[in-house]
Formats: sequence, structure tokens, C-alpha cells
Amino acid sequence: MSPSGDVSSGESLTLQAVAERVGGRLRGPASLSVSGVAPLDQAGPGQLAFFASKRYAKHLGVSRASAYLVGADLEEILDAGSPRVVVDAPHEALRVLLTHFHPEVPRRADVHPTVVMGRGVRLGEGVRIEPYAVLGEGVTIGDGTHVGAHCVLGAHTSVGPRTVLHPHVVTYARSVIGSDVILHAGARIGSDGFGYTTVQGTHRKMPQVGRAVIEDGVEIGANSTIDRGSLGDTVVGRGAKIDNLVQIAHNVRVGAATMIAALVGIAGSTRIGSGAWLGGRACAANHLEIGDGARVTFGSTVLRDVPAQETVSGYPARPHREQLRTQALAGRLPRLAERVGRLEAAVASLEAK
Amino acid sequence: MSPSGDVSSGESLTLQAVAERVGGRLRGPASLSVSGVAPLDQAGPGQLAFFASKRYAKHLGVSRASAYLVGADLEEILDAGSPRVVVDAPHEALRVLLTHFHPEVPRRADVHPTVVMGRGVRLGEGVRIEPYAVLGEGVTIGDGTHVGAHCVLGAHTSVGPRTVLHPHVVTYARSVIGSDVILHAGARIGSDGFGYTTVQGTHRKMPQVGRAVIEDGVEIGANSTIDRGSLGDTVVGRGAKIDNLVQIAHNVRVGAATMIAALVGIAGSTRIGSGAWLGGRACAANHLEIGDGARVTFGSTVLRDVPAQETVSGYPARPHREQLRTQALAGRLPRLAERVGRLEAAVASLEAK
Amino acid sequence: MSPSGDVSSGESLTLQAVAERVGGRLRGPASLSVSGVAPLDQAGPGQLAFFASKRYAKHLGVSRASAYLVGADLEEILDAGSPRVVVDAPHEALRVLLTHFHPEVPRRADVHPTVVMGRGVRLGEGVRIEPYAVLGEGVTIGDGTHVGAHCVLGAHTSVGPRTVLHPHVVTYARSVIGSDVILHAGARIGSDGFGYTTVQGTHRKMPQVGRAVIEDGVEIGANSTIDRGSLGDTVVGRGAKIDNLVQIAHNVRVGAATMIAALVGIAGSTRIGSGAWLGGRACAANHLEIGDGARVTFGSTVLRDVPAQETVSGYPARPHREQLRTQALAGRLPRLAERVGRLEAAVASLEAK
Repeated sequence: MSPSGDVSSGESLTLQAVAERVGGRLRGPASLSVSGVAPLDQAGPGQLAFFASKRYAKHLGVSRASAYLVGADLEEILDAGSPRVVVDAPHEALRVLLTHFHPEVPRRADVHPTVVMGRGVRLGEGVRIEPYAVLGEGVTIGDGTHVGAHCVLGAHTSVGPRTVLHPHVVTYARSVIGSDVILHAGARIGSDGFGYTTVQGTHRKMPQVGRAVIEDGVEIGANSTIDRGSLGDTVVGRGAKIDNLVQIAHNVRVGAATMIAALVGIAGSTRIGSGAWLGGRACAANHLEIGDGARVTFGSTVLRDVPAQETVSGYPARPHREQLRTQALAGRLPRLAERVGRLEAAVASLEAK
Repeated sequence: MSPSGDVSSGESLTLQAVAERVGGRLRGPASLSVSGVAPLDQAGPGQLAFFASKRYAKHLGVSRASAYLVGADLEEILDAGSPRVVVDAPHEALRVLLTHFHPEVPRRADVHPTVVMGRGVRLGEGVRIEPYAVLGEGVTIGDGTHVGAHCVLGAHTSVGPRTVLHPHVVTYARSVIGSDVILHAGARIGSDGFGYTTVQGTHRKMPQVGRAVIEDGVEIGANSTIDRGSLGDTVVGRGAKIDNLVQIAHNVRVGAATMIAALVGIAGSTRIGSGAWLGGRACAANHLEIGDGARVTFGSTVLRDVPAQETVSGYPARPHREQLRTQALAGRLPRLAERVGRLEAAVASLEAK
Repeated sequence: MSPSGDVSSGESLTLQAVAERVGGRLRGPASLSVSGVAPLDQAGPGQLAFFASKRYAKHLGVSRASAYLVGADLEEILDAGSPRVVVDAPHEALRVLLTHFHPEVPRRADVHPTVVMGRGVRLGEGVRIEPYAVLGEGVTIGDGTHVGAHCVLGAHTSVGPRTVLHPHVVTYARSVIGSDVILHAGARIGSDGFGYTTVQGTHRKMPQVGRAVIEDGVEIGANSTIDRGSLGDTVVGRGAKIDNLVQIAHNVRVGAATMIAALVGIAGSTRIGSGAWLGGRACAANHLEIGDGARVTFGSTVLRDVPAQETVSGYPARPHREQLRTQALAGRLPRLAERVGRLEAAVASLEAK
């Protein structure tokens, strides 16, 4: 039993085969065999070293790799004699090779005898459910879906096909999880939003009756929390990717293919367009609109709407160039203050004449 | 079995009955029947649309609602002919109606046969404990309390009556949880504080021997962490509300009815008064005093004491008005620098005369 | 059964014995007996009050303690007649006394019958595994290690001797946990990093094939997440201490004895030296170098490399003194703007002459 899945080891490839798989240009012995890819400073004999950033050129001297997977812009830095496969998009090439060298271990369909299921649970074909999972009344699980150990799915949760729930995921009642979704350990889907009315200093809980809807192809990181909607739904759109320890509050809408890095917090009812990017530890206040393709840089705090395609940064977040200019001037404030002091002296002296 | 609870559906109400329940003014057919409340842009026939913010007036054109629950200040925006119930406090009215339309499913008292209990566990009347919960030695559970699937309660944890622990809550030994408390999935109560003494570069763990005390009526969000006290106790006061992914460090005191939004971090020994508000992703350094009724705006970083009733914002947090003025001036720095440049030229020219 | 451990109560000590244990100077009756240590404002008769910060001197008036454990620099503040033990390093003395008064309850070696184990699991001597833990294929557990209730250890996870996993820890496959490690409730070790290649607007998942390596003597707080490496490993170095809700991204290296407080986020591939300190809610962008002994103050955002031994603060983080100067000048901006206005008037008047 392999509760959290694992990676097995694929077969070796010749450099010729590597070049064909990634659409790259081969320089070196076509029949040289490599058994895997490794970082530049860790690759040993028989391995392909991955070289995609000038930053790591310093490790070239110590590399014991048999060959290199290198971006076209960095090829010149390599020793002339080093065997290599040259590509324009090295990260995509790396993805292709890792998928070959580390194929997923197929998970055997199986429902462990310790799984507790409520009335009316429906399981698709080829489902795997690991020890101690608890499925509430009316839960449905799609074909080929994997439910990790200790997951607790609230009543009437619906999970689509080919989805992977890592161990310890919890969904609240009526959550909707699409197909080809990945939820990492400790993700909480559909928890109550932070909603109260305050009457004479006492906070009364607003019933949270909407749903959390996670569309197809979404991935959500470890220990992230996605609240249910208060009245309507909270929606994470198709193909969006969310990192660890992220908070998505009630009624937020995250557009398709938007990426949200770790420790980001999105407050209630804010809407983020599609194809947007929020860097790590960024946050956005409630009831805002962040447009399609907008970018919020690492650590920034969004307090106003962000137009589509705009890049914003800082506290409060403003257009990135403006933020950089303000920061630079702030650094020169001591000199500006001195200049004003000198002017005051000069004017006083002129006035005294 | 419904591991995470659920909401059932209450009976339809006439507009007349709606107006009576919420103390509102009826405009329209008294006998019109509505079966629920929905957001303005999602409400359909037979539903009451909730309209409490001008921001959403743009959705009025597309609304297919049968009637409206509307704040007195927004009534004029509605079409003259739209049936409505007009109220002064629309969110409190919404709370009352949702409590009617979505009554809580009563949870049947039951201790699942898979629950593991240590010696000396005492359970009150009408307790429900879901599959795979583990209760350590000497744990006590009050009447009518619900312990979700997979909760692990450390030895001698005490939980009051009518409290709800959602699945996957963990308490460390000797935690004290009051009555009418709600702890969401993944909340960790009483974990060790971050305390060490450093001797010649090695960090030695300070035993954390205080308790975490969660008073009556508190709600704590998903995956939040409340450390135990190091020597004394960490206390979350009566009726305080804490959102998801919040960190409350050792020996912190949170006053009664204080609200703390998501991703907030309160460092060790800081004391927050009663009725305070900390916006999302705010944080406060250690050993500070934040007074009664103080407000810390979204994303702010508190590095100094905050007087009672004060609103602070920014990094470092300062009085909100001052922060806004400083931000505005920072935005005008380029112009100020230009003005100083022009003055220098003018003074040079005057001096040359 | 005590799923989360507990503390038992050690024997009383005479003041003479206290002074000997902590290497302190005794002032008062050598035979006076104390049964424990408590905070200044909570200590009662028979207890030793801990007094190590001038901040709490205000509580001296109400203290009912029988004696004091006091730092040498604060001794004068005490009433001349108060029995006391005076020490140079009061926190280290406190640690010694708490270790005496609150000895750890010995955990009986035992593997609960509900534990599920895959093929090839190897358990050392004196191991304790609590209810419902799930150990994947090929997991190894060192001598005297404690695995809390509901832990799920992915296939081929290796855990060293004398390590404590609190309840609800999850490790992904092939994680490596050293000896004398403490992992708190809800910690996730080896989760996938946030890695994708984007082809025509679609994000393709990069296989995450590296490991998470937690070296000897590390402590990791509740609900923290440590991603596995993408190609190489993510490493938390020997004796490092990490607080609650911290995110360590793929391929990060945390040096030996470095301390990272709550809610910190370290983005991918950043390397932190040894003996560094990151205050609560600080964060660091990806691919940075933070040197040995560097300090990042509470709430700061690191966007550039930090040299060894440097202290940085603010957004963006800059040397601490520079940051303080800039902040002070920002506060004086309104006055600077006024001075420029007066200069303009004076120059205009001079020019008019």
C-alpha cells in the first residue's frame, strides 16, 4: 500500500532519443545513454544535467554529468566538447523528460475495508480509496479517482473523474470538485466564510449556505483553505493553480488558468480574472476586481481594483513602475532634505542683503 | 452519516411573513410566496434577491427575482413596481431569513464504534462523535457537543456543551474549550509555542507548560493554530471570532468579541483588548498592547502599541489618517523633487546678480 | 492512552536546590520549598515567580509568590526582603527548572492494533504508534520514535530515532526525517512544489521528483508545509527551528540552527545560511541568497540577497538602519513640503524686487 503515491523509475534513453522527445538539437554522441536528469551541481555520470539559468553557471566547473540539457541562449557557456541537447524551452523539455524517467506508479483500484460510507454513496469505476477515509451521505466519486487516507468528504460532496485527493483532505457538505483535480494534504474545501452580523457588540453567525466549486484541472496546495460561498458560490476556475497555505474567502471567483502562489489571501467577494498571477504572500482586500492577465508581485497588498494586464506591487499596490520610482525617491529623501536646508540658508542670506 | 453536517431546506414564506420576521416594511403583494434568498445576479423566480450594496446595482437589470430584500438607503434604485421588503439592517435580516430557509440538520447523538477513548473519558448527554476520533485519557465532552471525524483530543482536554468540532481538529493535552464554540477543520489548539534558549549556537527547547483556553462562543477557522502558553495561558476571549490560517502565539490574550480575519499572525505575549478588529493578513509583533476597540486595517503590520479605539494601517502601522497623508505625499515625491530643482536654479540666478 | 503526550508534575525543590540547579545566587531562606514556576502576575504561595523583563515590573505589587527567579539586571527592583535566586541568563534557568517541574510523561512503546502498514515497513526498538496511523510501503521508523494518531507516512519515508510526530502529520513518498526531530500537528512534509510549464495558456504540471530532507534536531510547527524538491532536494538543516504555518518551497535550503517564525514564506530555490533569524510573517522571494547569521525583522519582505550578518527590514527589505531613517523622513514629509512652499514664496518675492 502506498498511501501518498510514489514515482517509479523509467528506462534509460540515448541522447538521440532525448533530442527526439524534446524536439532539441543534438551535439555529441547519439548513442550515449542517460538514466535521468539532475540539477547541475548534483548530476553524476550517466545523468543529464539541467542548465536553464545563467545564475547556476558557477556550478559548471564541478558538474560530473555525462551530458547537458541546455537552453539555446546558454549553449555558448558550455565547454565545446560537452555532449548536449539544445532546446528553446528548457523547462518544457525537462517536463517531458521527467514524465518519462519518473512515470507515475499506477494506483490499484481498491476500497480499503476501513473506509466508512454513508447512505447513497456512489463510486465510479476504478476508484481507489485508502484507509480510514470517511464519505458522508450522498457523496459521489468519479471514475478513476483516488481518495487518500483519512480524507473526510462532507455529505453530498461530488468529485469528478481522474481526480487525486492526497491524504487528510476535508470537504464540507455539498462541495463540488471537478475532473483531473489535485488536492494536496490538508486542503479544506467549503469551510464556512467569516460572516457575522453584530448586534449590540455580539457577533451572530451568518449561515453560510453557498458552495465551494473547484472546476476541472485545478490543483490546490497543502493546507490551503477555500471557503464556501455565503449566499452564492465560491468558484476556482478551470485549470487554475493554487499553492500551499492560501486562503480563498467566501464568494471569491478565481478565473481560469490563474496562478496563486503560497500564503496568498483573497478576501471575500473579490473577483480575479483569467490568466492572472499572484506572487507569494500577496493579498487582496474584499469586493475588488482584478482583471484578466493582471500580475501582483511577491508580497504585495492590493487595496484597489487592478485593470486587466496591469502589473502592480507594494503596499498599497500601485502600478509596478510607479512603485519602483517612489521607492527610489524614498531612498533619496535624506539628500532632498539636505538640499532644502541649503536653499533655506541661501535664501536667508539673499534676504539679509 | 453526515460527517461535516449539512443544511436542510426550510419552508416557503409569504412576503408578509418575511416582513414580519425581519421587522421590515412590505411593498408589494403580501401573499407572494418565496422559497429562499439568493444574490442579486443569481436569484430566480420564487426567490428573494438580496440587495444591500450599491456596488451590485448593475445586476438589477438581469435579476429575475420575484421580490427583493433591500436596505432602506437603496430602495429608490429599485424599479417602482418590484415587490420588496425594506429593512434598515439588511445583513441582520438576511441572517434571520437564512436561519429559517436553511435550518441546521439535527445531528443524532451517537458515538461511532471506531472511536478510541483513553481511561477516564467522560461524555455528556446527547454527544455525537464521528468515525475514527481519538480521545485521550481524562478528556471530558459537554452535553450536546459534536466531535467530527478524525478529531484527536489530547489527554485531559475539556470541551464544554453545545460545541462543534469539525473534522480533523487536534487539541494538545490540557486544552480548554468552552461552550458554544465552533472549531473548523484542521484547527490546532494548544500546540507548543516557539520558545528556545540559545546556548553556544544551539537552540534548546523551552518546555511549554501553559494551556490554550478557548472561551465560550468563540469560532476558529480552518487550519488556524493557537499555541498553548509557555508558563501561563494563551486565552481567546468569549465571543471572539477568528478566521482561517490565523496564528495565535504563546501567551497571547485576545479580548472578548474581538474579530481576527484570515492569515493574521499575533506574536508571543501580545494582548489585544475586547471588541477589536484585525483585518486580513494583518500582523502584530510580540509583547504589544492593542487596546479595546482598536482597528488594524487589511495587510497592516503592527510594531508598536495601539491605543484603544485607534485605527492603524500600513508598514509600520501608524494612525490611519497619517498613513494616508504619507502615502499621498510619497506619490507626489517626484513633483517635490522637481520643485526643489527649480528653486535651486532660481536661487543660483539670484545669487549671480 | 495519551495521544498528544502530556506533562506530569515533578517534585518540589528548596530554594537552595533551585540555586544549585541553575547556578544562581541565593538570597533568602535556603530551605524554603517551591513546587513550580509561574508568571509574575499568576504565581501564588509555594511558587517561584519568573521575573526577566522590566516590562512586567508593574505586576510585582500584586505578586503573591513565595520567591523569585530574577535576572541580575532586575534584582534591585525587587523588595529587599523578597526571597530570590539571581541568575545571569534567566530564560536558560527557567528552561532547567521547567524541565524538572514538568518532566515528560514517558510514552509506552506500543503499536496500536488499528495501525495500517504496507509491505516492508521496518520499526526500530521501543517505537510507539498511535491509533489509525498509516505507514506506506517501505517506511522505516527509528528506535524510540513516536508516531501520533492519524499520521500518514508516504511510501519509503524514513524517520530517524527519538523523533516525535504529533497527530495528523503527513509525509509524502520518500521523505527523510532525521533523529530527535519534532513535527507538530498538521505539518506536511514533501508536498509537491508549485511548478508548471505554460504552453499556450495551459499550465502543465512539472513532475516533482526531489525529496524533502529534515535533518537531525529540527522542530517544525503546526500546519507548516515543506515542499519536496523539484529535481534536487529541499533541505531543512540540522537544529533549525520552524514555527507554525510556515511555507518552505521546493529546493529551498535552510541552514543549520536557523530560526523561522510563524507565517513566514520562503519561495523556490532560495538558500538561507546557518544561524539566521526570520521574524514572524517575513517572506523571501525565489532564487535569493540569505547569508549566515542574517536577520530579517518581523513582517519584512526580502526581494534581494541579504549578506551574512546583515539585519534587514521593511518592504522591500533594506538594511535596518536605512529603513528606520527612510521611515522617519517619510513621517516628516508634510513638513518638508511646507518648507519648500515657503521657499518658493521667498524666492518669488526676491525675484520681484
